[in-house]
Amino acid sequence: MAILDPDRLFPVDPNVRSMARGLYQSVCDLPIISPHGHCDPAWFAQNKRFSNPAELFVVPDHYAFRMLVSQGIELDALGIPKADGQKTERDPRAIWRLLAENFYLFRGTPTAMWLEHSFEHVFGLDAPLIADNADAYYDHIDQKLGEEDFRPRAIFERFNIEVLATTESALDDLKWHKQIAQSDWTGRVVTTYRPDAVVDPEFEGFHANIEQFGAITGEDTTNWQGYLNAHRARRAFFKEHGATASDHGHPTARTADLDQSEAAALYQKVISGTFSANEADLFRGQMITEMARMSLDDGLTLQLHPGSRRNHSQDVLATYGRDKGFDIPGRTDYVDALQPLLNAVGFEPGLTIIMFTLDETTYGRELAPLAGVYPALKLGPPWWFFDSYEGIKRFREATTETCGFYNTVGFNDDTRAFCSIPARHDVARRADCSYLAQLVATGRLRENEAYQVAYDLTYGLAKKAYAL
Amino acid sequence: MAILDPDRLFPVDPNVRSMARGLYQSVCDLPIISPHGHCDPAWFAQNKRFSNPAELFVVPDHYAFRMLVSQGIELDALGIPKADGQKTERDPRAIWRLLAENFYLFRGTPTAMWLEHSFEHVFGLDAPLIADNADAYYDHIDQKLGEEDFRPRAIFERFNIEVLATTESALDDLKWHKQIAQSDWTGRVVTTYRPDAVVDPEFEGFHANIEQFGAITGEDTTNWQGYLNAHRARRAFFKEHGATASDHGHPTARTADLDQSEAAALYQKVISGTFSANEADLFRGQMITEMARMSLDDGLTLQLHPGSRRNHSQDVLATYGRDKGFDIPGRTDYVDALQPLLNAVGFEPGLTIIMFTLDETTYGRELAPLAGVYPALKLGPPWWFFDSYEGIKRFREATTETCGFYNTVGFNDDTRAFCSIPARHDVARRADCSYLAQLVATGRLRENEAYQVAYDLTYGLAKKAYAL
Amino acid sequence: MAILDPDRLFPVDPNVRSMARGLYQSVCDLPIISPHGHCDPAWFAQNKRFSNPAELFVVPDHYAFRMLVSQGIELDALGIPKADGQKTERDPRAIWRLLAENFYLFRGTPTAMWLEHSFEHVFGLDAPLIADNADAYYDHIDQKLGEEDFRPRAIFERFNIEVLATTESALDDLKWHKQIAQSDWTGRVVTTYRPDAVVDPEFEGFHANIEQFGAITGEDTTNWQGYLNAHRARRAFFKEHGATASDHGHPTARTADLDQSEAAALYQKVISGTFSANEADLFRGQMITEMARMSLDDGLTLQLHPGSRRNHSQDVLATYGRDKGFDIPGRTDYVDALQPLLNAVGFEPGLTIIMFTLDETTYGRELAPLAGVYPALKLGPPWWFFDSYEGIKRFREATTETCGFYNTVGFNDDTRAFCSIPARHDVARRADCSYLAQLVATGRLRENEAYQVAYDLTYGLAKKAYAL
Repeated sequence: MAILDPDRLFPVDPNVRSMARGLYQSVCDLPIISPHGHCDPAWFAQNKRFSNPAELFVVPDHYAFRMLVSQGIELDALGIPKADGQKTERDPRAIWRLLAENFYLFRGTPTAMWLEHSFEHVFGLDAPLIADNADAYYDHIDQKLGEEDFRPRAIFERFNIEVLATTESALDDLKWHKQIAQSDWTGRVVTTYRPDAVVDPEFEGFHANIEQFGAITGEDTTNWQGYLNAHRARRAFFKEHGATASDHGHPTARTADLDQSEAAALYQKVISGTFSANEADLFRGQMITEMARMSLDDGLTLQLHPGSRRNHSQDVLATYGRDKGFDIPGRTDYVDALQPLLNAVGFEPGLTIIMFTLDETTYGRELAPLAGVYPALKLGPPWWFFDSYEGIKRFREATTETCGFYNTVGFNDDTRAFCSIPARHDVARRADCSYLAQLVATGRLRENEAYQVAYDLTYGLAKKAYAL
Repeated sequence: MAILDPDRLFPVDPNVRSMARGLYQSVCDLPIISPHGHCDPAWFAQNKRFSNPAELFVVPDHYAFRMLVSQGIELDALGIPKADGQKTERDPRAIWRLLAENFYLFRGTPTAMWLEHSFEHVFGLDAPLIADNADAYYDHIDQKLGEEDFRPRAIFERFNIEVLATTESALDDLKWHKQIAQSDWTGRVVTTYRPDAVVDPEFEGFHANIEQFGAITGEDTTNWQGYLNAHRARRAFFKEHGATASDHGHPTARTADLDQSEAAALYQKVISGTFSANEADLFRGQMITEMARMSLDDGLTLQLHPGSRRNHSQDVLATYGRDKGFDIPGRTDYVDALQPLLNAVGFEPGLTIIMFTLDETTYGRELAPLAGVYPALKLGPPWWFFDSYEGIKRFREATTETCGFYNTVGFNDDTRAFCSIPARHDVARRADCSYLAQLVATGRLRENEAYQVAYDLTYGLAKKAYAL
Repeated sequence: MAILDPDRLFPVDPNVRSMARGLYQSVCDLPIISPHGHCDPAWFAQNKRFSNPAELFVVPDHYAFRMLVSQGIELDALGIPKADGQKTERDPRAIWRLLAENFYLFRGTPTAMWLEHSFEHVFGLDAPLIADNADAYYDHIDQKLGEEDFRPRAIFERFNIEVLATTESALDDLKWHKQIAQSDWTGRVVTTYRPDAVVDPEFEGFHANIEQFGAITGEDTTNWQGYLNAHRARRAFFKEHGATASDHGHPTARTADLDQSEAAALYQKVISGTFSANEADLFRGQMITEMARMSLDDGLTLQLHPGSRRNHSQDVLATYGRDKGFDIPGRTDYVDALQPLLNAVGFEPGLTIIMFTLDETTYGRELAPLAGVYPALKLGPPWWFFDSYEGIKRFREATTETCGFYNTVGFNDDTRAFCSIPARHDVARRADCSYLAQLVATGRLRENEAYQVAYDLTYGLAKKAYAL
């Protein structure tokens, strides 16, 4: 018995559904290109078994645990580790039961579909998770996790992943990537250059990070040129470990293009520790433009992920640390914010800047008009809360008419939850095929074109945009 | 003959329509829970006949008369009373004819559907209202209104209302609620604590209101502690008259959590009458947090209705007063605005804060992410202009994927137009069942789950959120 | 063979499609009312042949060339003339080939549908444009353009245009309109009063423009009264040449209603050349209210087109000038911005103010609520990037429930691309009929009403709103 409807996410009209199904069948077995995500490279370097179902599906997945928290279940009870290392719930089976008892909360959410996709397709389960089968589910998954076939590398291969990008801090030694490269395993796991810790003056430990940045590169990061050189060195190091992109998670989309002397003076301010919030934001904005200029030399694709208001709950931040489901999207301006960057490098051949948003109002009003005219600018797929059927539908409906398909870059799963990778790509492929079938059925696209576009959205555009 | 299509608002695909109809049939006869509205409790206390069709359907309904005004019909001609008591149109039949002649203006609007629902289901009419049958309509309705069966209490019972909440000022003596309670009628009409007049320093007569607030509670409202005690006293009084919730209609969603000494100082400023617009807003924001703290003691659910820019036309305000259709929604921020409140009480067990919005852009970007993680926060239904088929559809599509169904609270009719209550609940039930059927048809929800969710959206969630 | 699907843009459900088709058939042959656009009146005055396919379809159409630019094709290669008159690509066939080779970029966009509509319905082509048939296409169109039947006036008549409004600067001598009027041709081409060059202190050459404004009207434009008189004189002159409307392209929707002495002082500041950005915006806002007051006298309909952030690329502006596809929509406020205007003239009988937006978030939140109550205010159709199937759908879904159909004004093609006029009106008629059929199928509108509304949206409302 299947848990999921095999025709899920296809349009309801029988003819359009049939067209969507045909399109989907042409792309559902294509390899997965995962150019942006947050899997742990240690999994593939060490290839140890995943410890238990709760550690696989609940503890690392903020989508899953935030919903449980929203109904009054405490983070402690879900095994979320405390920032100071203090113990929380240790019995994974107890955590799993909480998930099972409260699984009805996820009705209608992508999280339910991702989890059920994993239960059915990864673990071969055939009934929905409920309180009554919680233990049987747990035992089944736990037993599978003990099998050789369920080690990270085996799953990676079964998922048909052609390439998986992880994300590492600029200060990371990339030892896991090194270990993967030196192993006899042929899976392609590449890193991504994420320099927030040495670019954002408001990042915790920024000053120490800058010192470490100098130490590991041998550059004098007490001055602007040395600091830029340190970036160049680290970007080269990341490229050696497969990186084809950098990624930047800024509160705003602000960019700047100061004179180098002004930029150098601003750098002195931010490393002195005495700067205003506005100067911190300006510095981050200046660094986007600097990163773009380095991309002209080294070819890394530049990704900007702005708009998250992080750590909304001070108590949760203090007790449990970052990335605990309390990052909330906020209004984001792009038109004025991107002008310095686009005026500086927007026409540079070979440069690819991928812009993400958590503010859907900007799809049609700002981002599609910008991506529909500047050669360097491309639109990233729907991100975070919007990586969902309705989110993808709104994205396509709001952007395609203005910037077409070819100024977008395919799908990103952006996940820390390994098993959700094929589930998320499957949702994206279904949602895109449904959208394309709807265009064909309403005379806005020819059927043969729809097949080409489906291939490009699934495979071609991501490979091209990330040079993979 | 029916005026309305019995399958209205159901999806057009025959299979999905059939599923939606089945879901609807399972909830259409459930009692109405009306936890938030603006009916006049005097109707049920006195049980007098409604005076005439115009006074029932046009004069008190800003949805109806604002559309007529938009096409150049004067407020005077519609019988809207002037603020100074000066006479306007007195012939209800003339007002009614204006409605009939211009009924085409409402094509495609929820107002048309609500009115036609009342015409058909309350008054047994069987042809659409047009200029030609205006008088016949008038006579028919007017005659019915004279019958015992059309007195307010009889209609209330026929509507199958389990509980109806009205909204009263903190200064109200609740005499109508007292009278209802003391009568032999068993209909449940409860009040709601609405303290805007004594919380908003910019409310007309604020200073006098505060004095009266002190007088009726015996508290010294010239100081902060006395003022808070006066609230406590009035909340207790409202609870005695059935209140299970407070309601706050603020221009913004700003909240604050000042030290008590700062709050006390701010209170001195606002009662002194010399305060800035920002201080007024800060005070309103502080009071939301104070109200939430009182809710921890007395269990009242807290509702915040921010975002209306009231009284856009100065002439209409001067001539006709408040609530005359010239309140316009505006952009509203929630992420930063709610942070002080949620950091103060967002994890308190047993506390329910229901957040409304007139800014639909915040559904997916701000409100669903917040309600999807903070236990105390729930999302109110689509409000005011968005209490409509498309409004409900957008609400569900934008929020469900992020916060699910169980962080929402069912439907509010929020109406001053008594006859529209079942019409509005019917629209909400149909719209929700259509949405659920669409989820089932696209494999996002199982059919048995859809029946449970339909029940919860119609009945269970509202009872729980408002502790009714 | 048809290039386009004859049932394009109709709903997919067979019954709803049939209803939409029926509605469409009732309006598809109605004459075109084109009350707002940017065609060149010289075409109809001189009636010369269009020079070649590239000059007809690519060079003047920023929708077409911006998409090509977004994929790295240079403006030079597309024949876009430089601001200094320097030569760019001169071979129209080379430009045409670029369009053909890259036509896949337009998949799913309205531009593709508009172009294909022209290819099929204006030029009788029967296969989609691809690289392989680029030359055959070019030759076919070029030959047709040489025929008498393809001169501008013949095309105008074949398009069944009842009236076409162009847009001219307040300083224009309207010689082409004069020449048309004096010719024996009966096509109705009217002008529109567009005074941005003498109203916007930040317009290039503002100071010289004001001098010229005085010179051509004989008014003393060094003072406020003379300046206002110059407007009155030019409005009268434009009315003599058929104008029934003025049009205003401002960065924001800000309006003002200063005392006349303050306005006069502000005018002195702006013509002195020493003014702040805020004063420039305030002056533009004041002029909207002044224009509305003049409309009370001369009956011109007032159109406000706010929200475009023009000339985003400084390089493109410097090299190629204005209107080169680098105008990007931005967030726009209406509630506060329009309050001075609407408080001044919002209830004036006979006044029509048509408000446009590039910020779709304001449809339901701000514009429909405002247009749904102020008699003078009407909503313009979806504009620019939103003149598309999805754009029209979103517009109707977000506005109809609040302000109905009768506070909207039919369709504007707003185009510089002559051949796209019937294509655009066809899209609007199809999209509106699809929307109406959906309302009927879901019981929100009766079928006979839908036919009346379809007629009004296609023909009646535009004639009335623009007094044509």
